[in-house]
Amino acid sequence: MVKWVLVLCFNEEPRMSSSFGHLFRITTFGESHGQGIGVVIDGCPGCIPVSLDQITLALQKRRPGGDLSSARAEPDIPECLSGIENGISLGTPICLIIRNKDARPQDYQNTTDHYRNSHADYTTQHKYGIRPSSGGGRASARETAARVMGGSVARQYLEHLYPHFKLTAFVSRTKDVACDLRTLSTLKSDDNHPLLDTKLIMSSKIRCADHRQSQNMIRLIKDVQDKGDTVGGEICCVGQNIPLGLGEPVFDKLNADLAKAMMSLPAARYFAQGATSQSTWVMGSQNNDPLSISETTKQIIHTTNNTGGIEGGISNGAPLIFRVGFKPPSSTRHIQSSVSHSADRVQYSMTGRHDPCVLPRAVPIVEAMSCLVLADHHLRQLSFKTSLE
Amino acid sequence: MVKWVLVLCFNEEPRMSSSFGHLFRITTFGESHGQGIGVVIDGCPGCIPVSLDQITLALQKRRPGGDLSSARAEPDIPECLSGIENGISLGTPICLIIRNKDARPQDYQNTTDHYRNSHADYTTQHKYGIRPSSGGGRASARETAARVMGGSVARQYLEHLYPHFKLTAFVSRTKDVACDLRTLSTLKSDDNHPLLDTKLIMSSKIRCADHRQSQNMIRLIKDVQDKGDTVGGEICCVGQNIPLGLGEPVFDKLNADLAKAMMSLPAARYFAQGATSQSTWVMGSQNNDPLSISETTKQIIHTTNNTGGIEGGISNGAPLIFRVGFKPPSSTRHIQSSVSHSADRVQYSMTGRHDPCVLPRAVPIVEAMSCLVLADHHLRQLSFKTSLE
Amino acid sequence: MVKWVLVLCFNEEPRMSSSFGHLFRITTFGESHGQGIGVVIDGCPGCIPVSLDQITLALQKRRPGGDLSSARAEPDIPECLSGIENGISLGTPICLIIRNKDARPQDYQNTTDHYRNSHADYTTQHKYGIRPSSGGGRASARETAARVMGGSVARQYLEHLYPHFKLTAFVSRTKDVACDLRTLSTLKSDDNHPLLDTKLIMSSKIRCADHRQSQNMIRLIKDVQDKGDTVGGEICCVGQNIPLGLGEPVFDKLNADLAKAMMSLPAARYFAQGATSQSTWVMGSQNNDPLSISETTKQIIHTTNNTGGIEGGISNGAPLIFRVGFKPPSSTRHIQSSVSHSADRVQYSMTGRHDPCVLPRAVPIVEAMSCLVLADHHLRQLSFKTSLE
Amino acid sequence: MVKWVLVLCFNEEPRMSSSFGHLFRITTFGESHGQGIGVVIDGCPGCIPVSLDQITLALQKRRPGGDLSSARAEPDIPECLSGIENGISLGTPICLIIRNKDARPQDYQNTTDHYRNSHADYTTQHKYGIRPSSGGGRASARETAARVMGGSVARQYLEHLYPHFKLTAFVSRTKDVACDLRTLSTLKSDDNHPLLDTKLIMSSKIRCADHRQSQNMIRLIKDVQDKGDTVGGEICCVGQNIPLGLGEPVFDKLNADLAKAMMSLPAARYFAQGATSQSTWVMGSQNNDPLSISETTKQIIHTTNNTGGIEGGISNGAPLIFRVGFKPPSSTRHIQSSVSHSADRVQYSMTGRHDPCVLPRAVPIVEAMSCLVLADHHLRQLSFKTSLE
Repeated sequence: MVKWVLVLCFNEEPRMSSSFGHLFRITTFGESHGQGIGVVIDGCPGCIPVSLDQITLALQKRRPGGDLSSARAEPDIPECLSGIENGISLGTPICLIIRNKDARPQDYQNTTDHYRNSHADYTTQHKYGIRPSSGGGRASARETAARVMGGSVARQYLEHLYPHFKLTAFVSRTKDVACDLRTLSTLKSDDNHPLLDTKLIMSSKIRCADHRQSQNMIRLIKDVQDKGDTVGGEICCVGQNIPLGLGEPVFDKLNADLAKAMMSLPAARYFAQGATSQSTWVMGSQNNDPLSISETTKQIIHTTNNTGGIEGGISNGAPLIFRVGFKPPSSTRHIQSSVSHSADRVQYSMTGRHDPCVLPRAVPIVEAMSCLVLADHHLRQLSFKTSLE
Repeated sequence: MVKWVLVLCFNEEPRMSSSFGHLFRITTFGESHGQGIGVVIDGCPGCIPVSLDQITLALQKRRPGGDLSSARAEPDIPECLSGIENGISLGTPICLIIRNKDARPQDYQNTTDHYRNSHADYTTQHKYGIRPSSGGGRASARETAARVMGGSVARQYLEHLYPHFKLTAFVSRTKDVACDLRTLSTLKSDDNHPLLDTKLIMSSKIRCADHRQSQNMIRLIKDVQDKGDTVGGEICCVGQNIPLGLGEPVFDKLNADLAKAMMSLPAARYFAQGATSQSTWVMGSQNNDPLSISETTKQIIHTTNNTGGIEGGISNGAPLIFRVGFKPPSSTRHIQSSVSHSADRVQYSMTGRHDPCVLPRAVPIVEAMSCLVLADHHLRQLSFKTSLE
Repeated sequence: MVKWVLVLCFNEEPRMSSSFGHLFRITTFGESHGQGIGVVIDGCPGCIPVSLDQITLALQKRRPGGDLSSARAEPDIPECLSGIENGISLGTPICLIIRNKDARPQDYQNTTDHYRNSHADYTTQHKYGIRPSSGGGRASARETAARVMGGSVARQYLEHLYPHFKLTAFVSRTKDVACDLRTLSTLKSDDNHPLLDTKLIMSSKIRCADHRQSQNMIRLIKDVQDKGDTVGGEICCVGQNIPLGLGEPVFDKLNADLAKAMMSLPAARYFAQGATSQSTWVMGSQNNDPLSISETTKQIIHTTNNTGGIEGGISNGAPLIFRVGFKPPSSTRHIQSSVSHSADRVQYSMTGRHDPCVLPRAVPIVEAMSCLVLADHHLRQLSFKTSLE
Repeated sequence: MVKWVLVLCFNEEPRMSSSFGHLFRITTFGESHGQGIGVVIDGCPGCIPVSLDQITLALQKRRPGGDLSSARAEPDIPECLSGIENGISLGTPICLIIRNKDARPQDYQNTTDHYRNSHADYTTQHKYGIRPSSGGGRASARETAARVMGGSVARQYLEHLYPHFKLTAFVSRTKDVACDLRTLSTLKSDDNHPLLDTKLIMSSKIRCADHRQSQNMIRLIKDVQDKGDTVGGEICCVGQNIPLGLGEPVFDKLNADLAKAMMSLPAARYFAQGATSQSTWVMGSQNNDPLSISETTKQIIHTTNNTGGIEGGISNGAPLIFRVGFKPPSSTRHIQSSVSHSADRVQYSMTGRHDPCVLPRAVPIVEAMSCLVLADHHLRQLSFKTSLE
């Protein structure tokens, strides 16, 4: 009788990587219901002012709470273990941690014997053979708090180097309630745009500066929440005064690295360059962004910006514009059919604290990942100009 | 007297990277009008049958030629310098090169004094301070022939490991002429689907197995070409019998790495997971993909596949489905306004050999990049499964 | 008049990397006199038993204290923030931190206005333009406690996979007092050797199992310490039952990665393969290690092991043997001439807590770095054997 | 009935990496008896003059031939496929290849049925399960020709940036015939030293400028060669006007990366920093390198240079000095006992073309790897200094 016997690697399970970036590089750690979460930022140059208050502020923007979000109430106060002294970066690795306080493992106990639909449960269990005893572990959205800390340091670095740097994300669509983004395609780097008014964005619970649509979105979400259901939508991100020349021509295009950054966010479903989707629907003669000379500054400018500020993978001086689509959260209160760990059919409904919509909380995360990509590409580019007086 | 003296590096220009992948890693090289182009595949395991004919075949699929494509007629015969002996990989780096034969630098001479709109000219010149004397250099689509060679080796590796592995891309939309992809959302890994019939796809000039829409797309492109204009559209890619467990839970999600791979292609404008865009427009209760037990195989299956085969960043055993949007080529025969290198306004129109639509030639490139991502993630995952019968 | 004006990158200072390893990868953080130090271990597979007690034990071996070492008395109790649950690795990043308790910045105040000779002060100040206000920052030997924590996890991983794995470092020479290592060149993987007796090594203050030479070394160090001076020497490291096949044939040879690991330790001055230096002094006919068949096991063996267990960059199944030379600590109590930050000549002598000899404390660090290199190369190698019964 | 079924990957063999460097990165390819060998240099900035003649010259220095070397007569004429136009780097990947002409696979036929002692045969076969049908494949010294091409580009880059940059390697010891290197410990960056006279080095067959010892070394090698035996020894490498500030403080110390580079060379057995081995044998008070102010230039200088130009892992402005030990070639004409592939004891002696001593040919390779490490660290450091005159 023929029998195969597997000889080695008895218990070995696959590994993972939790690092992002090449030169400005973050490594995040921590399970959703463990001791805490954190980030090591390796590669941030020294002599940069880094404010812990700014980091705390960024965390508050993505913190659970508010009637549109899950009820988990984490204070999310970051502690800095290294790399910053007297508010100045030392050029050494910066470690920032947050303790988990309001972890309620018991809420997740009924999830340990079956796979939640459209969650990471089934794939994680299959791949790693082990999962934390409660919560989503690394797949939980809680991990993104570490990204926000890293992104805040990246942003402070960029703002220090480029005083006019501005990067703003906002919710541009909730389900089918959408803002009109067409006017962004002619935005210049020094223009203001009503949709990019940071104060208005932050004063809207759904993070949208268009007052009318913001109200409609909030109404929609509450309605959906009442039904125990969930919705998704889209976040738009706009960067102004991004230096010309970031990105590389082949694999490490700026849009490619942004796409990876965005698609690495939980629930992300699409990444699209530019303010609208017209690029792939119109003819070339309508889609090109002609170069011209500014009447006022005598600088080279693009008269339109259908491409969203990137040509050939490299930032072109026009505003950076892209959009990210997010699916609705998979945890609804509806009864769902699934399968248990022992491969039996089961039915379940979710009772824990879950968001009806991830969009408002994803806004600071989209900004954080954008800043990380830009800071990394800034360091990858050594261009310095000299002029002969 | 005070005088600043700059001590170092006045002439230094930024660098680039031309490598993709971590363990199964390609490095491409070559300018569009230089001696030739090539790829080094570092990390392909030994003992794998690798056929040079298969590589030539993959190259032919993306080769210019045909009345829908530019007239540059490169034979594209790959030469193998290392890593393969008697049709078997040695486990050493595989170097494959193609000589450029039909380079016509003179066609591009009028482009060296101005920036072509929506090309990489302006950003490359600004970033690198130097460009090849003709053609797009690394930004040219010619670079993708090197990716196709690398991708073909990756595909042969995957097919050797997984005999039922199947990965098929096709043009799903040209401008506003689109196939109906909805039935792909319930496709199973062992199913056949009319849109995935490789013979029909290859027999269509536009690489679309839907005969009626294929005809409509071709008519559209010819019409556009007659007007000296260009169009874009969408490619859909479907992988079947992709092993469960590829991808990682945090930054290196399978969808994130696929998004980067696709957005690194010239003219790519969006990456979207799943066969349709419904995920971000419907409610959670409509979007989840319930797990169940197959009546026939008694295996765990997903009853629907809105997510396109990836949950929590990890392949879930259902077919991998994503779509990539491409803009129309920027080189139209229309007269365009732009700016010269000396910052004067100029007008130009393109006369070289250019495609009215990149879609048919992008099909094998999308497949190549997909196989590279999958082979890399396969190597990053040590999981091997045993089942108790 | 010609004058150069530097235009950009106003305040930018260079960055650093604090990561080591490719697949089993550690990132260390923390300044010597900051909040604390720590390590993130990214890439450790799941399902591995990891004991915090083992990590504490490893830290105690390198902890300052004892009359041969500096008087800084850190308890060095590690706290685990993530990646381990119930003593089992989750496959997620493991973060371990130690709080600094006995930091005495005031001891270093007189060092902030001049450069200590043969320290990192001058080069760090020149390169980074900023240093922590006290102590050596990242250049301090305190950073190596983080490596020891990472190395202990790597060791537990290796011991779990290879039950007979054994790796032992010891002090083989202090200044000119040396052990006789020649008999190690014929050691087999399953042999015991008196110099590798872990109990004897740990019971010797200088970490040397040769009782007579251990006594001589200790006497020498005390004598040197009385004179306010310092000494260096050599550590020998021997690995037994290292699996055959670790390492790669070109750049990432096992000896190359070990050399980098060892030369990255503070005060390391040479890395040498094999138990003795004879390899480069004798003739080829005397130096080769002939292959043979073991009379007892019928396995292929090497009759000698001059090469230290590595052939062509790959472990060959014989014991891994290498030696690392360390210079004497630069902080002596002698008066030294140096230069102040304002470029004036100064004289100084050290008063802080400093070691007369780093050797005993370097022993666990050499072991830690070895285990990290081996665990990384284990993960980089996918070989698995199947046998047909 | 219980039966284990192995589902995947039985045939999979481990992979390798053939890349070196992070930002200035080479990937080498090619088997010793295949079509040819080559290198892709990815990350070399644009606008740098790169002369193919310089590369050819560097190759000639390491080319087999001459009565001290093996008789394989490769013309080694490099062909450039990409990245250089009109003698100027484009900032794109530079691919350089050499065709193999004088491969004589038949000379190696008797080596395919047994393992040559102290070669890579046994470990490569065990690890990869496949080897090229003749010669050492990637383990052959022929691979180093690709490193020499990459190193020559790195050197041209460094020489362009630092006009006074000088890096010289020479044979400092053959078996027990050694030069006196002690005076190198007080060498300054602008000094000439008789041992570093490039013309004298190149006019010596053994690459040693000390005429008397050069003669003795040559006599020794010829004598050894007559006996069918081989010898090893040491190469010393000295860099002058290396910029202050290269290297990083923790893992990527300049000495650590140099150690890895050198220990990745075939037959390397030790890496030692500084001109002599005294550092680990003397007391701290004798070993420190005091800082002072130069009487003539008023710059900060080191009065001695025991450390070899690196402090805390970072270059300190003093000459870079290190030594590399090489074992004797393993291929002697003596009869040796070994083991066949079928695990039988065999006896063999080598008849192919083999070097009695690798030292003279290793000199340009040591220089090449040094330049690659320095160019990479130059790119990793963004520091640019201005001085106020």
